[in-house]
Amino acid sequence: MERTELDSLGKLGLINRIAAHFPLINTQTVLGIGDDAAGINPDGQIVVSQELLLEGVHFDLAYFPLKHLGFKAVTIGVSNIIAMNANPTQVLISMGLSNRFSVEAVEEFYLGVKAACLAYQIDLVQCNTTASRMGMTIGLSAVGMAAAQQITKRNTAKANDIICLTGDIGAAYLGLQALEREKQVFLTDPTMQPELSGKDYVLQRQLRPEARIDWLGRLKELNIVPTAMIDVSDGLAAEILHLCSQSKTGAVIYEDRLPIDDHTFLAAEDLGINPLTAALNGGEDYELLFTIKQEDFAKIESESDLSVIGYMTADASVIDLLTKGGQSHPIQAQGFAVG
Amino acid sequence: MERTELDSLGKLGLINRIAAHFPLINTQTVLGIGDDAAGINPDGQIVVSQELLLEGVHFDLAYFPLKHLGFKAVTIGVSNIIAMNANPTQVLISMGLSNRFSVEAVEEFYLGVKAACLAYQIDLVQCNTTASRMGMTIGLSAVGMAAAQQITKRNTAKANDIICLTGDIGAAYLGLQALEREKQVFLTDPTMQPELSGKDYVLQRQLRPEARIDWLGRLKELNIVPTAMIDVSDGLAAEILHLCSQSKTGAVIYEDRLPIDDHTFLAAEDLGINPLTAALNGGEDYELLFTIKQEDFAKIESESDLSVIGYMTADASVIDLLTKGGQSHPIQAQGFAVG
Repeated sequence: MERTELDSLGKLGLINRIAAHFPLINTQTVLGIGDDAAGINPDGQIVVSQELLLEGVHFDLAYFPLKHLGFKAVTIGVSNIIAMNANPTQVLISMGLSNRFSVEAVEEFYLGVKAACLAYQIDLVQCNTTASRMGMTIGLSAVGMAAAQQITKRNTAKANDIICLTGDIGAAYLGLQALEREKQVFLTDPTMQPELSGKDYVLQRQLRPEARIDWLGRLKELNIVPTAMIDVSDGLAAEILHLCSQSKTGAVIYEDRLPIDDHTFLAAEDLGINPLTAALNGGEDYELLFTIKQEDFAKIESESDLSVIGYMTADASVIDLLTKGGQSHPIQAQGFAVG
Repeated sequence: MERTELDSLGKLGLINRIAAHFPLINTQTVLGIGDDAAGINPDGQIVVSQELLLEGVHFDLAYFPLKHLGFKAVTIGVSNIIAMNANPTQVLISMGLSNRFSVEAVEEFYLGVKAACLAYQIDLVQCNTTASRMGMTIGLSAVGMAAAQQITKRNTAKANDIICLTGDIGAAYLGLQALEREKQVFLTDPTMQPELSGKDYVLQRQLRPEARIDWLGRLKELNIVPTAMIDVSDGLAAEILHLCSQSKTGAVIYEDRLPIDDHTFLAAEDLGINPLTAALNGGEDYELLFTIKQEDFAKIESESDLSVIGYMTADASVIDLLTKGGQSHPIQAQGFAVG
């Protein structure tokens, strides 16, 4: 593969090269890449979120393809917007880069960003680069729009609301563990071939997760505005605790209602990991966790891609998992450590 | 000073502790810290920008007080918004932190953020934290609003437009050099006292720069919408080249018109640095560089805090500095290296 040094192109040259991949597609985008700030003509209220992704903490380039990383970065931002029940419209990316990376490597990342922008029909409106002595650093902002009455927060769930979860969970974490295992094997013996057969599903969930933009439309079709919503990035347990903490409610979750794919069970068995742990604490699934009023239950009961996993309760001190054996365990979050 | 470990508080605890400092002050802020995204009720078009600030590249905690760093981070974001001729309204911050940092250290940073939010009358609407193995990493987004016809871009200057610059330049760079010199002295002999007397002005310009929000109002009072505008973050030379490149114009800049403060000259002499180099390539001044039509000259000629430093030309291949001795030199940018 060709290698062009970052220095040879310069900051502006690099930005121009990236910008060429991103003709604007969104009528609400007034001004894209290349100015002090992006310009947006809003339709309704706007929502904005920001995330940092750090090499060695959030991704390992030993096994994470750059193109997939670009796609995943956009997914993470878009998922935040969707979790507000808002339409994602723009994304802004800043990258810290060392000389380890070539222009082609950066471009590979942005090809993934482009694939995601097309998939979600949003515009990349800023792509800053800066020097880094610390590996690759990604700053990501996402912007979205919604009518004021449509925006769904975290602190508005009520006791007796039904807790719903899209798709299935736990797979992304097992994909990560499978990749980590193969990396360790490779480090021990570089002649070993990776043993990832049968892991397609969990790998895809880790390496190329898709934000549930389809559920934005589905909720509208079903005529449902959730009473509260959050995306599952830190793990289901952490997100349940977030919703309860902010809404000042408790919750009961049924273990046998948790949606875990068959491939996830098989991968968990192979890796010697409890699938329930993966589902509760794994994270990075980017599914939507939301609450609805009891009277809306009839609207969603025949949805095949949605699970009713429990309900909100009035006592904020009790947030329990009801096991298959009929026992109650307090739900505890992992993954809160800041460093 | 008290030291509370980050792990002892947890991510949510830390965010709640920071959030307590930031009651919303802006009527356009609908939803602040604590959700998947911030909610904003726009007035006119919005502009959004994003920056990354990396320890060891953009700041050195050996001499940069955390509170000042918080103030400066907000200044950098706000300056991007002002450079669009838009009113800054919100800021979002994500921090990557290692266990090296205590809760008190993070809070100190946010006290600086708070001082800046009050100074600029904007809201902090998101404060994410994440683990870092690479020192302190700051992701910063700023949001602002303006009527569509007021927004000032980089690519709309015309030949014969007058080039204006607020305040003075070069001081922030000399402040940095003074701090770097003292750090080297200290590393050689830790018993040495810092020799920073007489450097108050250049140190303040480096450690606590203020975005020119006053000029937003002044431009309105003068009834001027600049034909193009950019803030001086990478150095005057780089910003002139940006404006010309995007507007497809050339430019002539007069050396003897460049506003350099007396303190800057003195610090330059002491440090053995050419003040012209500091002014052209130093950066981090966060002054505003803008162009106006010739017919608007009468409106600004008596402004004491503004310098007319040159004019735009039709030939895009010629971007020259006219020296005091009457010679022309092509303006070249430094500070473009990405790694």
